[in-house]
Amino acid sequence: MIIVLKNDLKEENRKTLRRFLVDLRVEAVPVTTITQSLLVVVGKCGELTREEIRKHSSVARLIDVDRPYKLASISSLKTKTKFKLGENITIGNKKIVIMAGPCSVESKEQILNTAGEIKKTGAHILRGGAYKPRTAPYDFQGLGKIGLRFLKDAADKNNMPVITEVMDIRDIDTIERYTDVFQVGTRNMQNYPLLKELGKQKKPVLLKRGMWSTYKELLLAAEYILVGGNENVILCERGIRTHVPETRFTLDLNAVPYLKHETHLPVFVDPSHGTGRASLVRAMSRAAVAAGCDGLLIEAHLDPRRSVSDADQAISMVELAKLIKEVRLVAKAVDRI
Amino acid sequence: MIIVLKNDLKEENRKTLRRFLVDLRVEAVPVTTITQSLLVVVGKCGELTREEIRKHSSVARLIDVDRPYKLASISSLKTKTKFKLGENITIGNKKIVIMAGPCSVESKEQILNTAGEIKKTGAHILRGGAYKPRTAPYDFQGLGKIGLRFLKDAADKNNMPVITEVMDIRDIDTIERYTDVFQVGTRNMQNYPLLKELGKQKKPVLLKRGMWSTYKELLLAAEYILVGGNENVILCERGIRTHVPETRFTLDLNAVPYLKHETHLPVFVDPSHGTGRASLVRAMSRAAVAAGCDGLLIEAHLDPRRSVSDADQAISMVELAKLIKEVRLVAKAVDRI
Amino acid sequence: MIIVLKNDLKEENRKTLRRFLVDLRVEAVPVTTITQSLLVVVGKCGELTREEIRKHSSVARLIDVDRPYKLASISSLKTKTKFKLGENITIGNKKIVIMAGPCSVESKEQILNTAGEIKKTGAHILRGGAYKPRTAPYDFQGLGKIGLRFLKDAADKNNMPVITEVMDIRDIDTIERYTDVFQVGTRNMQNYPLLKELGKQKKPVLLKRGMWSTYKELLLAAEYILVGGNENVILCERGIRTHVPETRFTLDLNAVPYLKHETHLPVFVDPSHGTGRASLVRAMSRAAVAAGCDGLLIEAHLDPRRSVSDADQAISMVELAKLIKEVRLVAKAVDRI
Amino acid sequence: MIIVLKNDLKEENRKTLRRFLVDLRVEAVPVTTITQSLLVVVGKCGELTREEIRKHSSVARLIDVDRPYKLASISSLKTKTKFKLGENITIGNKKIVIMAGPCSVESKEQILNTAGEIKKTGAHILRGGAYKPRTAPYDFQGLGKIGLRFLKDAADKNNMPVITEVMDIRDIDTIERYTDVFQVGTRNMQNYPLLKELGKQKKPVLLKRGMWSTYKELLLAAEYILVGGNENVILCERGIRTHVPETRFTLDLNAVPYLKHETHLPVFVDPSHGTGRASLVRAMSRAAVAAGCDGLLIEAHLDPRRSVSDADQAISMVELAKLIKEVRLVAKAVDRI
Repeated sequence: MIIVLKNDLKEENRKTLRRFLVDLRVEAVPVTTITQSLLVVVGKCGELTREEIRKHSSVARLIDVDRPYKLASISSLKTKTKFKLGENITIGNKKIVIMAGPCSVESKEQILNTAGEIKKTGAHILRGGAYKPRTAPYDFQGLGKIGLRFLKDAADKNNMPVITEVMDIRDIDTIERYTDVFQVGTRNMQNYPLLKELGKQKKPVLLKRGMWSTYKELLLAAEYILVGGNENVILCERGIRTHVPETRFTLDLNAVPYLKHETHLPVFVDPSHGTGRASLVRAMSRAAVAAGCDGLLIEAHLDPRRSVSDADQAISMVELAKLIKEVRLVAKAVDRI
Repeated sequence: MIIVLKNDLKEENRKTLRRFLVDLRVEAVPVTTITQSLLVVVGKCGELTREEIRKHSSVARLIDVDRPYKLASISSLKTKTKFKLGENITIGNKKIVIMAGPCSVESKEQILNTAGEIKKTGAHILRGGAYKPRTAPYDFQGLGKIGLRFLKDAADKNNMPVITEVMDIRDIDTIERYTDVFQVGTRNMQNYPLLKELGKQKKPVLLKRGMWSTYKELLLAAEYILVGGNENVILCERGIRTHVPETRFTLDLNAVPYLKHETHLPVFVDPSHGTGRASLVRAMSRAAVAAGCDGLLIEAHLDPRRSVSDADQAISMVELAKLIKEVRLVAKAVDRI
Repeated sequence: MIIVLKNDLKEENRKTLRRFLVDLRVEAVPVTTITQSLLVVVGKCGELTREEIRKHSSVARLIDVDRPYKLASISSLKTKTKFKLGENITIGNKKIVIMAGPCSVESKEQILNTAGEIKKTGAHILRGGAYKPRTAPYDFQGLGKIGLRFLKDAADKNNMPVITEVMDIRDIDTIERYTDVFQVGTRNMQNYPLLKELGKQKKPVLLKRGMWSTYKELLLAAEYILVGGNENVILCERGIRTHVPETRFTLDLNAVPYLKHETHLPVFVDPSHGTGRASLVRAMSRAAVAAGCDGLLIEAHLDPRRSVSDADQAISMVELAKLIKEVRLVAKAVDRI
Repeated sequence: MIIVLKNDLKEENRKTLRRFLVDLRVEAVPVTTITQSLLVVVGKCGELTREEIRKHSSVARLIDVDRPYKLASISSLKTKTKFKLGENITIGNKKIVIMAGPCSVESKEQILNTAGEIKKTGAHILRGGAYKPRTAPYDFQGLGKIGLRFLKDAADKNNMPVITEVMDIRDIDTIERYTDVFQVGTRNMQNYPLLKELGKQKKPVLLKRGMWSTYKELLLAAEYILVGGNENVILCERGIRTHVPETRFTLDLNAVPYLKHETHLPVFVDPSHGTGRASLVRAMSRAAVAAGCDGLLIEAHLDPRRSVSDADQAISMVELAKLIKEVRLVAKAVDRI
């Protein structure tokens, strides 16, 4: 259960309420979001107790939740989460939002040329990695801060918002200056210190599902960010580890309608990692939209064969343009734009 | 490599050709399909040897295949496999074919009433199990032969073809009299004696993917049927076993575009087993069609909560009708019907 | 719950008891094993009803089981299942039993020479496949009946019992003449018609776990055999499909202590398939015994590199002899022989 | 390939060598460990080039490695990695080392009493968590710094070294003061910033395998630490995510002999997380030692049912004492102590 406090409550009133709860033997964790003050009740709470709390002068309303993810649960909010990126793009709205770009920012020219081409395809947000999580320490680790600058410049010149990955708490402030959305990669879905720090940020977070994780674990990871006060979390299905050797990961689209039933948060899909094969990306993008997702994250490269990382799954600009056209048709068929 | 023999070859000519191959040290397995006589070359075969074979008077043409699934491979046939069921339905054509019905035939009335309702929703083929593979020996094992008769009668009265599962070699002849398509369940995907016997049948086989299997293993299982001469095999993705506890299985839609690239066989999807949750079936049906499948296999029940088996995943007739409408819209968006 | 009937009950008494149960609204399935007549109660049964049944003159005793696998459950039998193979070997006793031999019977000489060498290593039972489940129809399918004869002759000359795989119901009678234990392979763990037929046999069955299956599903598959009256079932862990690419399967040794707590049936381990790598077989054999298994199934070949099937996982006779020595030492450390 | 430099080389000589390599078009990453200076060659390197490098006056020797994990590979070191903890314990030696303790430090008394009991069982190292990675933000997150102090005091009073988990880069310095070994949990196996920082530490690191990871990915994660100069890494198998619902994770003991063949690093096993069931921990500890591991990490609690976290898998002190006795017997059987 969540206790939503009245706005503009004095610290004095809060203390009184807390003492009142202690007397009722109700344990509650205070959570302050940008718009609300909440008390998240940890244990169970009988009907009578509930009645008493509801009547308390400092309480606005009670939200009943039987899920361990209280803030992420669909029952905690009456409306779906929506928020703006840049001037024209709204996440969580009827429009399917396309984030596209190369796996890594490789050079100033590469990302500038790419951004122009990406813009032409009709994609909305530019993605690109400056800090790369690489399996081996000898692999290209990204350009770092200079890469961020190249990325931001390229996006600005094309009037596109930016999404880029954050792996290290110490980079948050730097990245914040250059990005519009923080991306948390699959390997960091349960990096709790990172999630907690991102909970204190104002810019939205796209949280990729851990390749090992259940839906509940994904929602609980989002809860770490929400509980910190950052309400703008996008969940992203990106494939799980299974026994199937023919694809890099198994894209689990069951997650899309499941999550849409369980949470008010927007749900995106990354078919590039979720298949690991460029030849499957278009079909699985169409499928993701038909399943009900709110947006896509696509790896696209000017010359996919020369991508310095993830070359097998990046698609060309021609393919991306086709993909976006096809996705639009499917979007209409499922009453989206 | 596959050697396609000329039609109407005499046994004498065949023998000469085989001796000729033995001299060339080429090992080849003779395979007779309904329309063609083939020799499937097992090992490798150099360019010169190939040239000699091509010139032989009994040889029509050579098919180059580098996959272990020679007949199932897309390179073995110039066109996609298509075949008729009943008078009006063609599998493998532009039209998305819907097979729907209850998990089990429960009684004469149940299946008759169901069939009428299924027909009204616009579904094309009636499914229903008379012999059920059940995890526990104490669970309902199906009505057997009498169930087949109920199923066939119900389908006939509604002018629908029938699909039903075969588990036991000894039932093939009986089932053949009542069904239009043999269904091989996930647990039997590598039941090789069963596959071999179905290879001798004339009626089509819908082969469900083993919940543990790779794409290659599915194609090789189909190969067992094709090699016996039965060319009408439908592949069916139905979910794999993964770590995800929230769904019964993980529907692996990556399989759809992958298989469509690899084989000329039609590819169906079973979102009922592939999710195990009625609430996810419609969304995943839309996704399957958007991914490029040729048809769907749906569990539908007059009163899902009272289904004697698989109650959690069966949808109602109202839901089925909605599903078919939605699927039609998505089909058009991807240039299907 | 299981109702154990008194011995030598007349059909009349049975009928009276069944009517009595119908009046109590208790549904029960009659099961006749070689030594006992049982009624397996399918639904739940209150304390009072239970008391009434217990007092009935035809009832010997009640066995309380809360598991769906009633006969396989450890609560259904007071002692662990033990049985003799040949004159000297007892399965399920303190002694760790080693079954070893080639994947396939390749020729008369091969299996005869192999059997002699296997015997020298100290292994107890000769394994070898005459009917092989092969992923591709073009792979070597086994020598069939003649292979069985070679295998039996080789075993007889060395005074060893035989274990060999059965895949096809139609082969049961033939195989029965040549084998001492029927082996059911992983792909057939849920081939229910086959399990039911083996339930009618008198010779023991070694049932391999499906590479996709849970422990409960394995126990329920065993239940299919037990319920038919064949009480001598050996369970065999042989590896599951996981995401790990470095081994062919992941040997799940957790299954060993779990199953030993849950069932009275003997539990064997197949580290050859469970690793797919000859270099890991010795270590995992030691581990399996330390975990509490009752025996091992090992692929061994006179010249592993020339094995016609599964060459990567077969070990040499020298390795097998070492393995058995090491396993003996571990057996003693865990109070086995 | 790795170039081992001569000791006490001047910076001048290093520069000359680097220029020499640039001329040969050989890309090499300099790595300085506590005992050696290395140049890790990233790309391929022909035989002639190799010969030239070998002759260079600054080069001590070349290590050929064909694995992406160059420093972790068994071919990079002639001897197994061994190091001391405290005065009497050596990791990587013949003796099986037991690390045991509660999941979380709960209070001063709890950890003090526990440490005394743990010591009596014969375990060598005290484990306990002060910073806990918890799936939900509302779960107990550990006592933090004060917990570290309680843990260290309890260990000191019993003359035991300490192991505790680090999740956050910012905690490294604090934890370093209280622990003898840094533990990296499964969720952080690919937290590269954390691994890089631990590579700069002098105290050893126990690196738990990601529950999704392959063996190669585990070795590459270790490589991140080794490449930073910290040579004392312990690998720890702790179970992977599979479809099996009866255990919390599937303990993958295949990893033990595989890793012992591939790397010189010590390999530990955590059967507590690897089963998630207290009743399986003793059997799987014996199995792990029989498979060849160098030590165990066990969750033990004074009153397992009252553990504030992971209660299902913690064993009692009586069980731990039994476990250690059993493990000693198995250790002797496999020529360990």
